Amino acid sequence: MDVKTIELKKTILEDNDRDADVLREQLAQQKTYYMNVMSSPGSGKTTTLIRTIRQLKARAEAQGMPELRIGVMEADIDSDVDAKTILQETGVPAVQLHTGGMCHLDADMSRQGLKEIGSGDLDLVFLENVGNLVCPAEFDTGAVKSVVILSVPEGDDKPLKYPLMFQEVDVVLVNKIDAAPAFDFDRERFLKNLADCNPSAPVFFISAATGEGAEEWCAWLDEEVRGYLAEEAEGRQ
Amino acid sequence: MDVKTIELKKTILEDNDRDADVLREQLAQQKTYYMNVMSSPGSGKTTTLIRTIRQLKARAEAQGMPELRIGVMEADIDSDVDAKTILQETGVPAVQLHTGGMCHLDADMSRQGLKEIGSGDLDLVFLENVGNLVCPAEFDTGAVKSVVILSVPEGDDKPLKYPLMFQEVDVVLVNKIDAAPAFDFDRERFLKNLADCNPSAPVFFISAATGEGAEEWCAWLDEEVRGYLAEEAEGRQ
Repeated sequence: MDVKTIELKKTILEDNDRDADVLREQLAQQKTYYMNVMSSPGSGKTTTLIRTIRQLKARAEAQGMPELRIGVMEADIDSDVDAKTILQETGVPAVQLHTGGMCHLDADMSRQGLKEIGSGDLDLVFLENVGNLVCPAEFDTGAVKSVVILSVPEGDDKPLKYPLMFQEVDVVLVNKIDAAPAFDFDRERFLKNLADCNPSAPVFFISAATGEGAEEWCAWLDEEVRGYLAEEAEGRQ
Repeated sequence: MDVKTIELKKTILEDNDRDADVLREQLAQQKTYYMNVMSSPGSGKTTTLIRTIRQLKARAEAQGMPELRIGVMEADIDSDVDAKTILQETGVPAVQLHTGGMCHLDADMSRQGLKEIGSGDLDLVFLENVGNLVCPAEFDTGAVKSVVILSVPEGDDKPLKYPLMFQEVDVVLVNKIDAAPAFDFDRERFLKNLADCNPSAPVFFISAATGEGAEEWCAWLDEEVRGYLAEEAEGRQ
């Protein structure tokens, strides 16, 4: 007698993957760029979003471009704090999504939030996902791209400990670089650890608090979003 | 303008809850007691199951009762070690369930495993759930009862940090009590913390390694399972 191994048919994940593809297509048709922002609790997601939104507005003004119409969905198990902060600090529309204890957001939950925030009138919607480096990585939200924010105090070994997260994302932000002198965070070691699971994701070192590095990150994002909007507009002609 | 809060319709959880009720009813009809065992990684789930199975066999022999026909489903992200250990150490049928990265098991995944292990010919099936104190608590597996194993080195404050887990379970095992002198684990403080979220669950203090306390736990379990089997047999006459 031996032990049998069963690969569970991951019905939940497969159904969600299909639904996420449908949502991505719907968002492309309405020309909305949807970005999924993930991180541990306390790594500075909300502060980074505030910094990013302000910087994108400043860029548009400096370059005489129309401002991107931005919205933010704040997912949280039960608090309402983050969405209020975003609205107060940036003036952009924000909704709070209560997950009711769920450790992640899936495509259907994204769809409900996008409907409520009125994504049809927005160019760029950020989802601040539940603070957790494990579960959110497993569920496709339907976003065009996903970003992980890692803060310096968490350590340069995190890609080794949370490989799925660092493998699934399209771009990496290393936040709180102003705190680096107090922590043993080695950029080269971090980049090597990251390259082992994700050799192609662009990496930006920023301090959302001081603004250091935010211009490079926002230049990338601005180009990424405007490129997508132009392409979708052209594609639908 | 103010912030809107959206309570996400938790379609995944609601669908799963319905499915779990269906599975529970099917298992009652075929007279199989299904028990969901949850814990952090390293708290001794496999060792506890081995100790429990041996003790249940010894009880049956001592009391001249027919042995319970037991099976074990070992859920793991990708390892095969635990199911082989169970089979080698106890001789009971064991299957390994690969969750493919999922942080929990749901009712449908349970059903696939129960079919493979041949639960129709078993009186008692243990599920060793994925090692995680958060996500598995959110998903009803269809089990008759759920148990959490907390090991002494994890600390007596865990019910405060993982309230959903300790609230959802029907019985609590505190394992590795032989290690208590080396750790600041206060039983009274633990029981108080547990009572805050779950005042009714029975608690057993055991050492799966030395066997201390295992007789009390197994006496409870034996009575629980045999009571269920007798009730279902009577109910179906």
